[in-house]
Amino acid sequence: MTRTRDPEGGIRVAVSTVILTLRRDADGAPRISLPLVRRIRDPHRDAWALPGGWLDVAESLEEAAGRTLAETTGLAPSYLEQLYAFGAVHRSPTRVVSVVYWALLRSDAVDAQSAAYRATGAAPENVDWFDAAGLPSLAFDHARIIDYALWRLRNKVGYSRVAHGFLPPEFTLAELREAYEAILGRRLDPANFRRQVESAGSLVPTESFRTGSHRPARLYRSNTDVELADRGPLAPEETRTS
Amino acid sequence: MTRTRDPEGGIRVAVSTVILTLRRDADGAPRISLPLVRRIRDPHRDAWALPGGWLDVAESLEEAAGRTLAETTGLAPSYLEQLYAFGAVHRSPTRVVSVVYWALLRSDAVDAQSAAYRATGAAPENVDWFDAAGLPSLAFDHARIIDYALWRLRNKVGYSRVAHGFLPPEFTLAELREAYEAILGRRLDPANFRRQVESAGSLVPTESFRTGSHRPARLYRSNTDVELADRGPLAPEETRTS
Repeated sequence: MTRTRDPEGGIRVAVSTVILTLRRDADGAPRISLPLVRRIRDPHRDAWALPGGWLDVAESLEEAAGRTLAETTGLAPSYLEQLYAFGAVHRSPTRVVSVVYWALLRSDAVDAQSAAYRATGAAPENVDWFDAAGLPSLAFDHARIIDYALWRLRNKVGYSRVAHGFLPPEFTLAELREAYEAILGRRLDPANFRRQVESAGSLVPTESFRTGSHRPARLYRSNTDVELADRGPLAPEETRTS
Repeated sequence: MTRTRDPEGGIRVAVSTVILTLRRDADGAPRISLPLVRRIRDPHRDAWALPGGWLDVAESLEEAAGRTLAETTGLAPSYLEQLYAFGAVHRSPTRVVSVVYWALLRSDAVDAQSAAYRATGAAPENVDWFDAAGLPSLAFDHARIIDYALWRLRNKVGYSRVAHGFLPPEFTLAELREAYEAILGRRLDPANFRRQVESAGSLVPTESFRTGSHRPARLYRSNTDVELADRGPLAPEETRTS
């Protein structure tokens, strides 16, 4: 019953992360966007790939994902979850099992960090952001991995408050609806949307209002009594988020 | 950006499988049950553990899970899905990342195979079946892994026909309800249950009836137009079930 073969040396473990945020396009509409890294080595030299790398012997899978996030974006995630372990035999010229995480970043944090990088010229090399609907040709099976992450996000948004992970601590209902629309890829009726989120109990109204060119809109915050998404009995060392 | 450290030789990949079925207890009530393997080597020699072993360099993760299933039970699963990759640094004395699958077996197939093993004396060594509610002390983090698999099953049964994976091709509503009761750990009202499964569209009535000591009960089969559980865009090489 017990395996006696030991493939030590024959199989390597990588950790990659699909890092998702909302960035406004030229028309001001929020779009699901993600950072990719241009590869500087073979295989797939010069192709774009998910941020990641080899798992270090002294770090957990989630620590590796967090390290990648920090190195790629300078930021800590509002949500981080394991997506899947990809281990098809021929997905890479050598045998690599990639444990993939997906993460959400607050769009305001990404915008602020991008501005800081522009001001200082200290942006990470070989990193660029792409609209999830217009990705370049990708290395390995990374296009399929991103498809799966986007499916998981669409799926999860239906039964959790995970979309709040894209937003600052206080936001208007219109901003939350735009996040849902970007995730689902379709328009939502504003009145129906308001009814649904109000009945879900995941929002707490504040006494503040967003003022500007439109009429003042009430600001809400996320009800943190409700988990961002239920991940069951996995203990903190596997699911810690910042 | 690109990792240059290469942990080759320092991290090994194992694949383990939580194999679930229903077995009737002394009172005839179906209970969630699973096979465990008594370890014959250190670490945790003589402790019970999930079936599994090292990933072979020439097999995919799912092939390793299928191999373990066949070696432990002599059976192919009615449902097989990746559960999670467990990779905490100190979960084993050496660094091991375990990619864990969970599988469902038809209870009639398990009963038939057990009878065949008794008749031939050819049962796999060091394997025994346990009621999920009364497990022995387990090696490594396997108790926590089983908790997570049971949580995933309870969760999934609410929005899929995954419970059908425990049953033969034709079953009565009472048998299906008993499967749900075993999964959820509580009694369900028969009339409500009938209404709910009939409206879900996952059952097809047959013209056959189960006869015996009770009044004849209609047999149903699973509507295979409905996926056993939706796993999104993962292509067959990662999600093939038999």
